[in-house]
Amino acid sequence: MVPNKSLIFSAVPTHAPIPGEHITLEDRPFDLSARPPQHGITGRTLWISLDPYMRGRMRPASTASYSPAYTLGAPLTAYALVQVLSSDTDIFHPGDIVYGQFPVAEYSAITREMLDRPVVRKVYALEGLPAPLAPLSPWLSVLGSTGLTAYASLYKIGVPKRGETIFVSSAAGAVGLFVGQIARIEGLTVIGSVGDDEKLRFIRESGGFHDGFNYKKERTAEALKRLAPSGVDIYYDNVGGEQLEAALEAMNEFGRIVVCGMISQYNKPAAEQYAVRGLTNVLSKRLKIQGFVVTDPEFFKYREERDEKMIQWLKEGKLKNIEHVTEGIENAAEAFVAMLEGSKAFGKALLKVADPE
Amino acid sequence: MVPNKSLIFSAVPTHAPIPGEHITLEDRPFDLSARPPQHGITGRTLWISLDPYMRGRMRPASTASYSPAYTLGAPLTAYALVQVLSSDTDIFHPGDIVYGQFPVAEYSAITREMLDRPVVRKVYALEGLPAPLAPLSPWLSVLGSTGLTAYASLYKIGVPKRGETIFVSSAAGAVGLFVGQIARIEGLTVIGSVGDDEKLRFIRESGGFHDGFNYKKERTAEALKRLAPSGVDIYYDNVGGEQLEAALEAMNEFGRIVVCGMISQYNKPAAEQYAVRGLTNVLSKRLKIQGFVVTDPEFFKYREERDEKMIQWLKEGKLKNIEHVTEGIENAAEAFVAMLEGSKAFGKALLKVADPE
Repeated sequence: MVPNKSLIFSAVPTHAPIPGEHITLEDRPFDLSARPPQHGITGRTLWISLDPYMRGRMRPASTASYSPAYTLGAPLTAYALVQVLSSDTDIFHPGDIVYGQFPVAEYSAITREMLDRPVVRKVYALEGLPAPLAPLSPWLSVLGSTGLTAYASLYKIGVPKRGETIFVSSAAGAVGLFVGQIARIEGLTVIGSVGDDEKLRFIRESGGFHDGFNYKKERTAEALKRLAPSGVDIYYDNVGGEQLEAALEAMNEFGRIVVCGMISQYNKPAAEQYAVRGLTNVLSKRLKIQGFVVTDPEFFKYREERDEKMIQWLKEGKLKNIEHVTEGIENAAEAFVAMLEGSKAFGKALLKVADPE
Repeated sequence: MVPNKSLIFSAVPTHAPIPGEHITLEDRPFDLSARPPQHGITGRTLWISLDPYMRGRMRPASTASYSPAYTLGAPLTAYALVQVLSSDTDIFHPGDIVYGQFPVAEYSAITREMLDRPVVRKVYALEGLPAPLAPLSPWLSVLGSTGLTAYASLYKIGVPKRGETIFVSSAAGAVGLFVGQIARIEGLTVIGSVGDDEKLRFIRESGGFHDGFNYKKERTAEALKRLAPSGVDIYYDNVGGEQLEAALEAMNEFGRIVVCGMISQYNKPAAEQYAVRGLTNVLSKRLKIQGFVVTDPEFFKYREERDEKMIQWLKEGKLKNIEHVTEGIENAAEAFVAMLEGSKAFGKALLKVADPE
């Protein structure tokens, strides 16, 4: 048996989760000589992706949603890269690196059920990436769920066209940064909103955004008049509420609103949600507003095309895989909470647990 | 010269238009021996369609919108059937019946510009229709803009599937009645909302709707729980506001909201519009909300398919072409206002001006 630090779902939070109360690091010793589960594997975790949707899974099991609730007393699960220790499958062999939704722990017994999900795949060390990119971490960001979210939804719902203008809210977030960069590669004018001046400087300098504004200092409606005087063709919505309302007014005819998130409205009962005026714009401008979840098959099928284009753009230096890496599983809870707060990190939040052997 | 009663746009209304003030019947004598305009025709009006969008054209010329403002001092124009008197074209010959957007008058000189619009076409007397349908009037209702609005938007945006549930607001209106009937033919459960009990009786008995409710007597949210306990897959929105908000809550995953009208919100400044809560449903249920105007090319291209199916359904008695016919151009203003109020008529509002010769 070896020590095995694991991040346990210990209580359902009503607001922001608190380390040690709702998510707790515990040692759940692991037997390295144990046989893998039937048709499963055992594995050592290398990298873990920390994503906002995980907050939604920290709920009572009785509350239905599109992704299952976490089990109280068990580790959280997350998109992760795991190196195979032992295998009862014909597909995965010791030493292979596997991408999937796996426990947030140093070691795991990974069941057939976890391996049967369509997202699961073998990955490999990417060669020829510009420094300082690690050869594995892009599989959890630009080549993982975050990158697919940005890519598939922007092309499928947003339908970007050269010369158009896109407005991206939560522009310094993991998805927002990729959306902005892809849109700029496609020849759009890219405007972003953020919640503090350091992020504003960052998105202006990151290469993805032509300009942006701090929505806490300037009303979105005013900022859009200033920065997008010819109107907005695509609004990529990560926040909902007032910014959505302002975007409805600023949209051009036949505009598309991609609803990826509404983080300003989460954890609010319906009666306290921001009430949006100006939906008549949907009719007068023939707008399309569409929500999506990247695991829906029609979005997931973009994965191959995304891999190909994104790897090429990464190698050419056109696309930056902006990561915020925390090292060590012992910092998992704090890194998760910091990602949710969004205050300290730019880009994709990752946890590095171990190097491959 | 012959007398030629014409409905003139005499002043821009701020609220409901008043006959004699904003729309005024005047005699604009017509010279039956006059040559047609270059590449145009002269014609005698047979039937006129009265539609809600016409109210939107009664605005100052300086206010932009998707259809041009009416010209003060000139006749309104409307979808109409005109019989050709004289022609300077190779396409239209004396006696032909032409569909297009033409002046609301007994006689008109119809310019090349009016004839060049894609909606314009020659029509013919339909044979074999169940009584009491006139052989020409369906060209202005089920085979006109109203029918195309219902058909194209329901199939293109609504994407109806057998066994689903559709909720149609303003169900006794011209578009709503067609949407309900088409959806029922396609095997959906069809629920409608109306604003009075007589209309409720009517939609229940008309054959298009399985059930409905009077939104003035029962809150839409409560009615949908009662009438659509398994949720709503398509909301066909003609009214916006509170009914849209209630529909967002009632929608099933992957539901579609077809925004055809928001009549409850017209003529209101943005600050007085109903503010809609619950847009987080767009994300959590992956909803699509889309507005459209039937003259947009992607909808207009459904015309042939619609003609074919609708004529077949009419002849088979599956589809009722429910009309509210007013006789005589002298009643044009009052018939138009009654259509806008929606209080006295069910189905498509038509004005019969003359029989063909």
